[in-house]
This record gives sequence, structure tokens and C-alpha cells, in this order.
Amino acid sequence: MAKKYVYNFGKGAAEGNSEMKDLLGGKGANLAEMTNLKLPVPAGFTITTEVCTYYYNNKLRYPKELKTQVKNAISLIESQMGATFGSNTNPLLLSVRSGARASMPGMMDTILNLGLNKNTVNAMINKTSNDRFVYDSYRRFIQMYGDVVLNLKPADKSGVDPFEELLEKKKRSLGIILDVEFTANDLMELCDDFKQIIRDHTGHRFPEDPEEQLWGAIGAVFNSWMNERAIVYRSLNRIPDDWGTAVNVQSMVFGNMGETSGTGVAFTRDPASGENKFYGEYLMNAQGEDVVAGTRTPHPILDLKKTNKKIYNQLESIRLKLEKHYKDMMDIEFTIQEGNLYMLQCRIGKRTGLAALKMAVDMVNEKLISKTDALMRVQPEQLNQLLRPVFDLKEKSAAIKSGNLLAKGLNAGPGAASGRVYFNSYDAVNASARGEEVILVRIETSPEDIRGMNVSEGILTSRGGMTSHAALVARQMGKVCVAGCGKLEIDYLLKHIKIEDKPGIIIREGDFISIDGSTGEVLNGKLKTKPSEILQVLIDNSLKPNQSNEYKYFSRFLKWADEVRHLSIRTNADQPDQSKNAVAFGAEGIGLCRTEHMFFGGNRIDAVREMILAYQREGRVKALKKLLPYQRKDFMEIFRVMKGLPVNIRLLDPPLHEFLPKTEIEIKRLAELIGTTIDEIKYKIDSLHEFNPMLGHRGCRLAITYPEITEMQVSAIIEAAIEVQKEKIKPKVEIMIPLIATLEEFVVQEELIRRTAEKIISSKKTKVDYTVGTMIEVPRASLQAGKIAKRADFFSFGTNDLTQLTFGISRDDSAQFILEYLDKGIIERDPFETIDRAGVGELMKIATERGRKTNRKLKIGICGEHGGEPDSIDFCNSIGLNYVSCSPFRVPIARLAAAQAVLKK
Amino acid sequence: MAKKYVYNFGKGAAEGNSEMKDLLGGKGANLAEMTNLKLPVPAGFTITTEVCTYYYNNKLRYPKELKTQVKNAISLIESQMGATFGSNTNPLLLSVRSGARASMPGMMDTILNLGLNKNTVNAMINKTSNDRFVYDSYRRFIQMYGDVVLNLKPADKSGVDPFEELLEKKKRSLGIILDVEFTANDLMELCDDFKQIIRDHTGHRFPEDPEEQLWGAIGAVFNSWMNERAIVYRSLNRIPDDWGTAVNVQSMVFGNMGETSGTGVAFTRDPASGENKFYGEYLMNAQGEDVVAGTRTPHPILDLKKTNKKIYNQLESIRLKLEKHYKDMMDIEFTIQEGNLYMLQCRIGKRTGLAALKMAVDMVNEKLISKTDALMRVQPEQLNQLLRPVFDLKEKSAAIKSGNLLAKGLNAGPGAASGRVYFNSYDAVNASARGEEVILVRIETSPEDIRGMNVSEGILTSRGGMTSHAALVARQMGKVCVAGCGKLEIDYLLKHIKIEDKPGIIIREGDFISIDGSTGEVLNGKLKTKPSEILQVLIDNSLKPNQSNEYKYFSRFLKWADEVRHLSIRTNADQPDQSKNAVAFGAEGIGLCRTEHMFFGGNRIDAVREMILAYQREGRVKALKKLLPYQRKDFMEIFRVMKGLPVNIRLLDPPLHEFLPKTEIEIKRLAELIGTTIDEIKYKIDSLHEFNPMLGHRGCRLAITYPEITEMQVSAIIEAAIEVQKEKIKPKVEIMIPLIATLEEFVVQEELIRRTAEKIISSKKTKVDYTVGTMIEVPRASLQAGKIAKRADFFSFGTNDLTQLTFGISRDDSAQFILEYLDKGIIERDPFETIDRAGVGELMKIATERGRKTNRKLKIGICGEHGGEPDSIDFCNSIGLNYVSCSPFRVPIARLAAAQAVLKK
Repeated sequence: MAKKYVYNFGKGAAEGNSEMKDLLGGKGANLAEMTNLKLPVPAGFTITTEVCTYYYNNKLRYPKELKTQVKNAISLIESQMGATFGSNTNPLLLSVRSGARASMPGMMDTILNLGLNKNTVNAMINKTSNDRFVYDSYRRFIQMYGDVVLNLKPADKSGVDPFEELLEKKKRSLGIILDVEFTANDLMELCDDFKQIIRDHTGHRFPEDPEEQLWGAIGAVFNSWMNERAIVYRSLNRIPDDWGTAVNVQSMVFGNMGETSGTGVAFTRDPASGENKFYGEYLMNAQGEDVVAGTRTPHPILDLKKTNKKIYNQLESIRLKLEKHYKDMMDIEFTIQEGNLYMLQCRIGKRTGLAALKMAVDMVNEKLISKTDALMRVQPEQLNQLLRPVFDLKEKSAAIKSGNLLAKGLNAGPGAASGRVYFNSYDAVNASARGEEVILVRIETSPEDIRGMNVSEGILTSRGGMTSHAALVARQMGKVCVAGCGKLEIDYLLKHIKIEDKPGIIIREGDFISIDGSTGEVLNGKLKTKPSEILQVLIDNSLKPNQSNEYKYFSRFLKWADEVRHLSIRTNADQPDQSKNAVAFGAEGIGLCRTEHMFFGGNRIDAVREMILAYQREGRVKALKKLLPYQRKDFMEIFRVMKGLPVNIRLLDPPLHEFLPKTEIEIKRLAELIGTTIDEIKYKIDSLHEFNPMLGHRGCRLAITYPEITEMQVSAIIEAAIEVQKEKIKPKVEIMIPLIATLEEFVVQEELIRRTAEKIISSKKTKVDYTVGTMIEVPRASLQAGKIAKRADFFSFGTNDLTQLTFGISRDDSAQFILEYLDKGIIERDPFETIDRAGVGELMKIATERGRKTNRKLKIGICGEHGGEPDSIDFCNSIGLNYVSCSPFRVPIARLAAAQAVLKK
Repeated sequence: MAKKYVYNFGKGAAEGNSEMKDLLGGKGANLAEMTNLKLPVPAGFTITTEVCTYYYNNKLRYPKELKTQVKNAISLIESQMGATFGSNTNPLLLSVRSGARASMPGMMDTILNLGLNKNTVNAMINKTSNDRFVYDSYRRFIQMYGDVVLNLKPADKSGVDPFEELLEKKKRSLGIILDVEFTANDLMELCDDFKQIIRDHTGHRFPEDPEEQLWGAIGAVFNSWMNERAIVYRSLNRIPDDWGTAVNVQSMVFGNMGETSGTGVAFTRDPASGENKFYGEYLMNAQGEDVVAGTRTPHPILDLKKTNKKIYNQLESIRLKLEKHYKDMMDIEFTIQEGNLYMLQCRIGKRTGLAALKMAVDMVNEKLISKTDALMRVQPEQLNQLLRPVFDLKEKSAAIKSGNLLAKGLNAGPGAASGRVYFNSYDAVNASARGEEVILVRIETSPEDIRGMNVSEGILTSRGGMTSHAALVARQMGKVCVAGCGKLEIDYLLKHIKIEDKPGIIIREGDFISIDGSTGEVLNGKLKTKPSEILQVLIDNSLKPNQSNEYKYFSRFLKWADEVRHLSIRTNADQPDQSKNAVAFGAEGIGLCRTEHMFFGGNRIDAVREMILAYQREGRVKALKKLLPYQRKDFMEIFRVMKGLPVNIRLLDPPLHEFLPKTEIEIKRLAELIGTTIDEIKYKIDSLHEFNPMLGHRGCRLAITYPEITEMQVSAIIEAAIEVQKEKIKPKVEIMIPLIATLEEFVVQEELIRRTAEKIISSKKTKVDYTVGTMIEVPRASLQAGKIAKRADFFSFGTNDLTQLTFGISRDDSAQFILEYLDKGIIERDPFETIDRAGVGELMKIATERGRKTNRKLKIGICGEHGGEPDSIDFCNSIGLNYVSCSPFRVPIARLAAAQAVLKK
């Protein structure tokens, strides 16, 4: 039997179903599924993705069986629709659409109204008695065909589409402005003119033969799989080239055949709030394009209840049927042709974080899905949206009503921000220094904008997508960001913004705007922001748990996650309030308490500098003595907040020069304070200068040169533990040595730590629960893990440094070429964002295996920033780590990601 | 049977032999061996190293069997020597000496004349009729015993030895200067005073019982194994602590019993020239100490022929016997007691590089050893000495004769250098800038001196050993160095040097001195240096091969090495003359031709800077076009010199900012030259600034951003190859991509290289033998080697960067703490000097295995500086690399090391 390349659907029966996305693409599989569900789907067929792959592997030729299979499929449609392809009396018209496994919105080509020609046009006019509609359809078809199949559409935006050019010319000559003002006759003339354009540009006539039209369109869809924007899109979204696209050929239905026709899009639940109610828009006597064009305002779907109860009821029952069947919120497209409803598309609906959470919990309550399903329904990153500052919804609605919505861009960095507009880093930094809140507005951002982004409340760009520099950096920085807001016309020279479709409005430097990075909205003026409901409960305590539905959903959902996950979740925190927040978010300990921040507070830094400037051990010890009480107090406060949860304290890590003053004034002040000369200090600064400080005298190397620093820090830790034990708190202390590359480094420091600790403990005749371990952040330490683990109680992967060293890339210097690498597809994801499994991951695996082999009880965690990134958490789970540690606000994300990691496994 | 802890030797029979060094230590094993050879060795016994290990494992207690075994051994000596230990009539006196497996000169303690007390002193006087000799021996014994056994010797040099203090006092009161001026009576009084010192300091009497003396001395020797300097010495020389030392107890013989007695040291061949003649010194009526003290000048051993023909002949026959037996040049110590010859020590003699080479070849000719033995007899590093500049031997002898030898230190960096004395980096750098030749003189050096060392011809220090900072860095830099020249009194403040034993001489800043780093000699004034004989043959061509014996030995010896080795030897060179030298030294290709140096020559740098400053591709391409002819010419010259041997060319590696001007003047000049503003250039310099340039925008990352650089370089390479092919030279080109971390980086560059090359090749209708491969210098590349090797023709390990990244240590910033790590025994050797097998080595092994698995024909080499270091070469051989590449002057060393690697395996 010949291989099957074509799958039919129509009249309540389909050869495919929704499980066959790989073969039929998403659109084709769901059209088949809806057909099987007896929903009114116009008959059609899907040419499989295998044909696409064959096409590219065989010099753009089709499998020989295809022609016959398509022919048979057309016959089937003809019989089901009671019309004949190319008939001069009752012609069948077709749409030809792409449809890949994964959604690639707007990336590939579509041709509608296929089958029209001189003869079928007349038949259609006879049939519809609507010559304007028919000529308009014909003119659109010729234009689409010329653009897409015959490649007359210019490759980039600066080029001119010859059809559009002619349209404009015609309008001018007729003195009209809108397309709808063309008469049937105008359109008929345009059809002839368009055909002439094709003849002039290609040297061939427009093909009147419907079959030729069909094969031209099918070829164009397959070719569009390899157009440049599709290739770029796939590389950005990590879709393999060899997946290929399917082609969906379907009989046309028209929403623009008069007032009993119409078209609409809808969601089975509210995709913003998650509420279980029908949500969508429709427009009568219109095609999909008209809804998008925005020249007419669509009506809310509920209005249909009043204007066309029959259709509404039919849609409502379809909504329920689809949800029951798919067990998820669906996004649908429908067309009403002369009072008959047709379903054109259905797919899983996109949704906000809040909606995802609410739907997941609601659907469990509705017994539609299991808790496990629910946990997989929310992307961990979506939880982030629930923690970001928000606009007051009433205030925002009022602003939108009074016309202050300027434009919508991509919701690239969730949260809400208001501030004054500045157009470059320099101005932004200065404004911020004056105490202003800043929104940095750029056409697109580059590494030179980092300083400006850093001081801004939010970032707004007119160009670039969800993976643009602005979007990536904003998410990294935790900044609100609206990216790719194409309607903004940003003028750096005049320092103002104009809005494409709002000619009267100019936003100037210093004016207030507000951006909602969770929705992409850009609003004129200043809107107040406030912490999200969940933060009001957990952090501000301005709301009680039972006063917030959001919180109830959030905590219930994460409790389910906690039941499933194996990984513990800890936090990176070195301040008592940070630690407290993290515990509120569910942190089960501190995975990384950096001690260097504690060296800066108040006048501690003076003692630190005095220590660095001392030439002898005695001088350093004297200065360190001044620091000890501060450190002890810091640790006591953290131990109190953590109430017996483990606290992992990393000994001093950065190179000493980071603590020295940088400005002349500071140097002078310091010289006076500690009684030395300015030259002396400058000499020390010079002598501590390093070419590559990342690879310099830091971490345990510092502690080996200056063991007195370790002695002071360990004394402070142990004394603090003993102090709080008097308050009935039993701290669990983990003392962590940074930057170990060799066993010997570890041993030297470990012995010093234990000696120092035991001396204090035995002098106080008490006990302290402490362990000693190390960061694994140097490739060599990974390889030597077996030896090191014999002495270490725990490992903690410092994946920031481990990534820098495994790749030989400095994070501080790489922003520029990492973006280029992403652009060019050299790397799939930024290794500083997600763990590079092949390289860094292998070293982590080696370290874990070797470490556990020699020390069965070795506790292993991760404290690099990857510890809060879902895909990295999945990896950590897969290699059997004990915990991940992340910043306090990412703890909920990590809890969910850890649960999903178990479920995925 | 009880375990044997004591091994006897004496009267032509010994229980041990020279194979038993592990158990008996070097000295003990050779004393046994000499005894078995029927040489006249005073009877004695060796307590094994196992006793030492037992002693430290059992709380400083001895095995219970030891007492009896020692007692029996003493009895045996007594019967063999015809004297009785502790006898009041015919007492036996003993020496007690340490003796470890490896030589640890001066590190441990020795006690002589043991057995003397009130009674035996009288017996000895009766026996010798030489009361002065006996009291002098007694006084020395008490002092040694007090110092060593009773710990009265101060731990550091600043302390005062109470015995020495008293001696000085006594001399002052007697108005004498030298020890020899003491009368027998003075010495007798001193004995009593010394005993009183012991009583005062320890509260105990000096032990008169010889047995108590013996056990005290044995314990002292074992204890000295763990004294601080011994521990430091072992850690520096990588001698394990658990080897332990043996103790040699031997009957005393005296060279100071009158004019028929004497003592001497000798070598069986000349240890400096290697000539096969007896070489050494002796002194009559003297003890070993007197030779060392330098108060009397010893006579050449050949003089003995005239003064004591019998003894001379006896020694000559021992010399021949020892060489025939040991098949090597031996270092011997002997004593003549009243006309009788005694052998006290024999061991393999240390020798210069020239001597090692000559002896090895001569002994093959003499059929004493095989070629394989010969190859193992020369340490690869010793060959270095043969390539270093030398003083004219006649001129140097003349200078020494006229009293210009100032002092002798350690021969820490071979070669000869003359220059003006400067005492710090600052002055040295300035003097060098004035065009002076500089010898940097420091008490000891530290990382702050690096700049000064770099501009100096040679380095001279008064403190520190063969592994001191000065010695290590000098050898790394290839500088002449004499270290630890303790007789120099260096005064930084007055900027002069005085010589301890030459009160009249002062060397001031700016004065000329000459240092011989191959011998340790420091000479006053300026001596001419010239290239070594071998260089005169190979490089200068000022000598013909048959005019130089040194060259004949050298080339014959290395031919043997070439027959044995598996590794090819290549060189790192980017200049035609460098390449030519390397070929003369035996290089079989270029393993690393860096292209960045070529960017600096002449006015090329202007074009490079123009390229960097261009904002668009067009501007860069234009500037690169100017560079292309230069690069092409460079490559043509190298291809010509290499005459078809493989040439591995690395594409541009360093970050662009390295090429930009640094000074205001340069910036101004450049701005005028290329018609831009100073601000523009400064802006660019700022924007290219990197925090960690080692981890920045360099290597293939640069080439991916600016593919036009790769295009230009590949064009230059391929065009050059095509040009020289017209001259009947067939270059073998290897194009190497630097800093690959991912397969995708490699593929992008590889495709560009092949595309560029093929375009030129096909346009010229010719062929070029070229391959494309990559450096493996990033840990991730090692792990991904399997994937990369599918596309790469070759790998070359860049072990400098690989070491930096595997350890997370910047070589530029680590000098200070690496030395500290060596000092503290945290690392055994500087990983930048020799490959760290456990870490870097594992990554190399992984890369080799994975690479060869996917590409059986993969060629693998090393081009980091480790490629010229013998131990690293051994490692490269063991993991199966194809070649090592090193700097031209290290090629002979690498040839030998590669042969030894095979033989050791």
C-alpha cells in the first residue's frame, strides 16, 4: 500500500486526531479532532509534515503518490460540501494554510479564496448575488497569490508591494480613503490591473486553472518553512528545522457575506483572570482580517446572546464540549456564514500567570484534571507575575477608558512601573540620581544601555521580541519591560515619542508614562503601583491570608507542589529581612549567605580597609577584632529569623581590592582615619590590582594567605550560634569554603575552621551543630570531587563561576557576544541563565557521582543563580541534588519547578 | 625470628647492598656496597628507615628488638676494629649520621667523636700521645651533643649558640683569633666550661656513659627528620614524609692525627667538563669541616700522586673499580688516618649538563652502558645549559686568578650574563630604558620585582634556594640567575653590596658584575659573553660541525633520542628566523604560529587600529585589505623556511583592545592618521574595556563577530601557499581556530575557512594541502571533544589557558599566591610550569579519548608552554598525543624528554 500523505476531515469524521500533531501539525490535528467531536468544521484535508521533510530532502520534489491522494481528497470535499472545485456553476473555493507542530504565529504563508478565476467568479456572483463581495474576494486572492506564491512581496519592510502601490494610486484617483469605499466595478478593474502587474513582473499570466493555483499554493506554504523569518523564529524558539510544516486545505467559509455572517475569536475561560466564563469578541459581516485591522470595534462575545441566541447557545455548548474533551482552556476561531456556524481553529489558550493558577486549581475542584495535571499547567515563571507590583485595576481601567492607553507591546518583563521618560543611559542615570523614577525608552537596547536599565523602574522598546536584549536583560534584572511596541515612533534627537495611530499625542523627555509588563500595555501619565495581593499577605502583612483569593490559590497550589517534589528549596540571603521573606515564600533554609555584604555596612568598611592596609598579621588581627562583634550580630539575627533551619555561610570570597576606596576623597578620608598617607593607600590599591580579578587572589586563596580572616569569621559564626542557643534556637550551621580547586586547599581551611570552632565550643562547654563543606565552582574541583568529598560534609555548586570557567567566558564582559551567539544560533540559551547541560552539567554530574561515591552522606546543592531557573532545577533534580537555592522571590518558582521535575521524570 | 632492624658492614662483608636504599638510605646502602667491594670502609651498622617510621607511628618509641640488635652490632664493630666502646684503655669512638633514601644535604644532624668522656679521653691521649687533638675532639663532641641532642642550638640564625658565645669570649680573653691557636690546656678548660653550659641550660649533667650518648644521638637523628627545615626541604623536593631516615653508626677515623693523616673529596670523572680523569681535592692533617671552612686551600687530587703515591694508586684503583661497578661517575669521600685510607661515602656524582652529555656518550663508547642507559643519564633540562651564552673560559679564568671571583651562590638559571648592578625594579627598568645591560640584585625577589627581572640580563640574590621565587621565575623567563649567594651583604638603602669575607670590596649601583648561572660564580667587572659552541654551530654558523666536540656529542646523543621517541617535536614560532633556528634544533614542524605578532610590525598596526575603529563591516574590510599583503608575505617566508614541514597557524586570538594605543601621544597620532577625533578613539578604548580580558571577547568569539578577519587571514594563508608552490615548496598548512567552547562555534568558523580557501584555490585552478582544526583550551571543549572531532582534522591543547580555566587562576595575577601554595605544600609544582595531571591532565585525557573515538585519524598535539617541559612531555606521551610543540630553544630538551618518556614507560 502506498504511504498515506493526506488525511481527510469533514462531515463528522476525520482520519486524524489531536494526538497526531507531529504528523498533521497543530492546526490540522485539532481540525481533525473537532471534526471527530462532530463540531461544524468545513471539510478539508491535511498534507502531512512528512511531505515537507521529503520535499526538502529531495530537491523540492513531492512524493509521487501525493498527486493522486490530493485529487481523491478534493473529490471527497466536493461531495461533502456539494460543490465542485473549478466548477463554472457551483464552484468550491479553498483556503490553504500552514500548520507546524509548534505554533509559529505569522511566520508562514496563507492563501484564501483559492479556486477563483474568470469563470468561477461569475458562478459565485450568480450564487451569492453579491458582486462586490465576489470581486473583493477575487482581488484579495490575486494579491495574495502574487505576493506569496509568485514572490512579489518585497523581502523587507522598506520595499514596496506593487499591489498596495496600485491600490493607493486607485484610491487617490477615485478620491476615496478606505478599501470599503470601492465599488464592485472598481474592484473588478483592480482584478484586471493586478493580473497585469503579475504579467509585468513575472512574464507569465496569472494562472486561471484552479489546480495549478492549488499546487502553487501548496508549494508556497512548504517554501515558507524555509523563509528567513521562519528560520530565525525557529532558532530563537528552539524548533528543529526537520520538524517541517503540514499544509491544511479546507473549503472556504465567508463571514463577510452580509449581516447574517460574521467571525470571531474566543477563549473558553477568561485568559487574564482565569474566571470560568466565556470570553471573546466577534464582528458581523467581517473576515478575520477586519478584526485585526482595528477599523471596526468588535463586540464582546456575550453580546451575541442578545443578537443571535441560537449561535450563542451553539458556541456555549461547543465551549463546554471542548473543555470537557481537552480538559483545558481553549482558544477558538469561528465563522458564521449566512447563519451557519463553522469552527476554523481550536488550540490550547495562552493565559496570564494568575489565570493559569486559578484555572489549574479550579479544574481540580471541577474534577476535570488531577493535581498532577494542575501542577504541569502553570509554567513556573508565570508565578513570578503574581509577585510583581501591579497597577490598581480600577485606576488602570479608568485610565484606559479616558483614552490613556497609548499602545500595546510584548509583555516581556512582568510587573507594573510608572516613571519619567528618558531616552538614554546618561540621562536616565542623572535623573535617577536626582531622585526621579525613570522609564528608559529605547528603539532597542544594547550593552551600553545596561547602566540606564539598572537605574530604571521599567524599560520600553519599540523593536525586538521576547528574546531581545531588552527583554532578556530586564528579566535578568527583574525589571518591568514592554518590548517590541511597534506603534511607538521614538526620536532620540528630539527626545520624544509619537504614536503611529494617535497623531495628536507626543510624549517628551521627563513626561510620565506607565507600563504594564504583564500585559504589554503602555499608558500615558502616572499610575500608582502597589505590591501584588500575595506580597500584601506574605511580606507587607497588610492583607490577611483569608482576605485574598489570589493568596489562597497560590498557597494551595504550592502545597500540592511541595507534596510532589524531592528537592529542598533554600534561598540566597544575607540580611535578616531577606531571609524572613524567603521563609514566607517557603524557603527551607539558606543555601548561600554571603558574608562580604556584611563588610560594607556602617563603619565596618573602615575596619576592613584597615585590615587590608596592615602590613603584618598583628595589624590585621587588630582590625579584624573590630569586625568580629558586627559579624556575630549579623549571624545572630539571621539564626533567629531562620529558627533552626539550615544556614549555609560562605566565608569571604571577593578579592580585597573590591573593598578599597576608589575616589580621591574617599582615599583622603581613609588616610586620615587610620593614620597613613594617601600614597601608601594608592600603593596598596596598585599592588592589589589584577588583570583578571575573577581568576585572582580571592576565595580560599585569600584565606590561605590571611588565615586570620577565616578565624575571625568562624569565631563570629560559632559565638553567634552559642548566643542564640540561649534563646532556645538551635541553629544548623554550614560553613562553606569558596573557590576550592584542590583537596589540599580544602584541608588547610577545614582544619583551621574546626580548630577555631572547637576551641570556642569547648571553652564554653557547649555543643554547636555545624558542618564544613565547599563550593564547587572551579572545573578542577568537579574532577577532584571524589577526594574532596572524603573531607567535606557538603558541596554547593557555584554555577555562575563554574559556567564562566567551563566556557572561559566572563559574565561581566560577555553580554555583547552572548546575544550575538543567541542571534546566530551558536548557543540555544544563555548559559548564565540556564545550566549548560552538555558542559557545565557534565562537570556537575561528575562531581555528584564522584562525591557520593566516597561520601555516601554528602549533601549537595546549588547556589548559583541557576538555582531559581526551572530548566536548571529540572537538571538538578535529574542528577539527584539535595536542594536548590535561589533569591527569595524565586522560591515559589523553584518549589513548582522542583515538583514538575519529578512529574516530568 | 625477630624483624631485622640493624644491618652490619665491615671487614669486607656487609648485610646490605646498594639496591637497599629504601631500607638503608643512600649512605647506608653505599657503605654496604663499598664494603662488599672489599674497599676499606670503617666498620659500622645501619639502623633501617623502618625504625624511623615505627618511631613516628608509635609515639616516639623504638621497636623492642632494637636495643639488642644495636648491642650485637656494636660488639661486631668492636671485634672488627680491635677496640671497645667505652673502654678505658682502647676506646672505640663512633660517628652517628642520618641517611635518607634521597639526598637531603645539610638538612639533618650528625654527631662525631661519640664515646668520649673523662675516662676515654685519657685512654685516647695515651694511645695517640696527642692531647691537643683529643681535647679538641672532646670539645667538638660536647658542643655537637649539646647543640643537636640537647637542643641548645638556637632555632634561627638570629639566636646565639651558647657554646660559640663562650668560644668567642675565651678567644678574646686569651687575645687569640683562630681556633687552632688554642692550646691543649685551653681546650681542656673549654670542655669543662661546655659541660657547665649544658648543666645550666638543661639542669642535667652531660652524659658520661657512652651508651647513653649513643641512644641520645640516634634519637636526635630520628628527631631531625621532622625538624622544620627538613620538612620544608621535603615538601619542596616532593619527598614523602613517610620515607623516614636511616641512622648510620660507624667507627671514627681521623684525618687530623698528624701529617700522615688527611681527608678529601673526589669525583671519578670531571663533573664540570665530563672528562674521564680523576678530579678532586684533599688536605692533610685535617677533618672534613676544615675543608669546608675554607681557612686552608685544598690541593688538587693529582698532587697526591707526588706526595703520597701509595694512597694515590689505591684511590685510582678504587676509582676504576667503582666506575666499573656502578657504571656511573661517583662522588667519594675518604679519610687517611695515619697512612691508612678509609672510604667514608660514595654516591652518584652530580654534574653539569655538558659533563652529563659527555659522560653518557663516552660510557657508551667505553661499552660501560647501553644507549638506553645513556639517554636516561642526562636530565633534559641539562641540555639547556649547552645552549646558554657562556663566558670565554680563558677570560673567566684570568678574572678569577686576578681575584675577581666575589662569591659563589646556587646555579639557579644557567648561562652567563654581565651588566650593571641595580637594586630594584624601578631603577632596573629605567637603566634598561637608557640602553644599559642590567643585573638585578635583590636579597630575595617577590612578584613586585617581575618587571625588573624582565628587563635584566641576569638576577642575583643573597637568599633563597633552587626553588626560590628568583630561581623559579628566572628559569621561566630564561634568565641567568645565581640565587642564595649568602656571602653578599646587600644594602638597599646605600645601594651597595659588600662581601662577607672580602672586607675591602664594595660594589655600588651602576658597577659592572658578571654572573655565571651554570656554576653559581659571581665576578667583579664586565666579562664578555658569547653563544655556546652548539649555538655557534647551529645558529651563528660561525663554527663548522666538525670543529666542535660539544656539537658532535650533542648531535650524536640526540640522534639516539630520535630513534627511541614516538612523539614528534614541533616548535612555537611566528618569525622566519625563529622557525629556522627551531629546524636547526630538530623541530619537525611548527605547532603554533601566532598571527597577532604579525599585526604589530612596521605600520601594520595602523591598519589594525583603523579596522578596530571602523563602525561598519565595509570600513573593516577596507583596513583588512591593507593588512593582507603583509600577512601573505609573512606566511610565504615561513613556508619557505619550513620547506614542506607542517605549519600550524592560529587565527587571531587576543582581544582587540590589546592593539589600541595606550598613551595620549599615540592616540593623538592615530587620530590624525586615520582622520578621526581623539574622543572617538578614547570612546572606543573605553567601550572595549573588559573586566576579565582573559575571559572576554577574543579567539573565535572575535572571528564570529568579525568574520572578515578570518576571511583576510585565510586568504593570506592560502595565497601564500599557492605562491610558494611555484617555488617547488609544498607547504602543509594547518589552520587553527582558537578558544572553541562549542561545536557550533567551530562549525561556523570551519565553514567560513573552507569556503574562503576553496574560492581562492578553485579560482587559481590549483591544490593546497590544508586542514582545519582547533585549540582545546577551554574545559568545555575537552568535554565536547567527541562532537568537535567529527568536524576537526586536529586538536592542539592550549594548556596555558586550559590550566587557567581548570584552576580558575589567572597566570598574570597568581605569581604571589602560587609561590605561597608551593611554600605551604598545597601544590607540589606550579601547574603553569608542569601539567597538573589530576585536573588539567584528566581533561586532556577525556578530550583525547573522546576525540579519537569519533575521528580515528584525529591529529593531537600540545602547544602550551608545557610542551617543552619534560614531565609534561612524559604525560603527553602517556596519553598518546602525536606531537608536542615548544619554543625553538627547548626543541632539543623535548627530543630527549620524549625519548625518556618511551623508555620510562
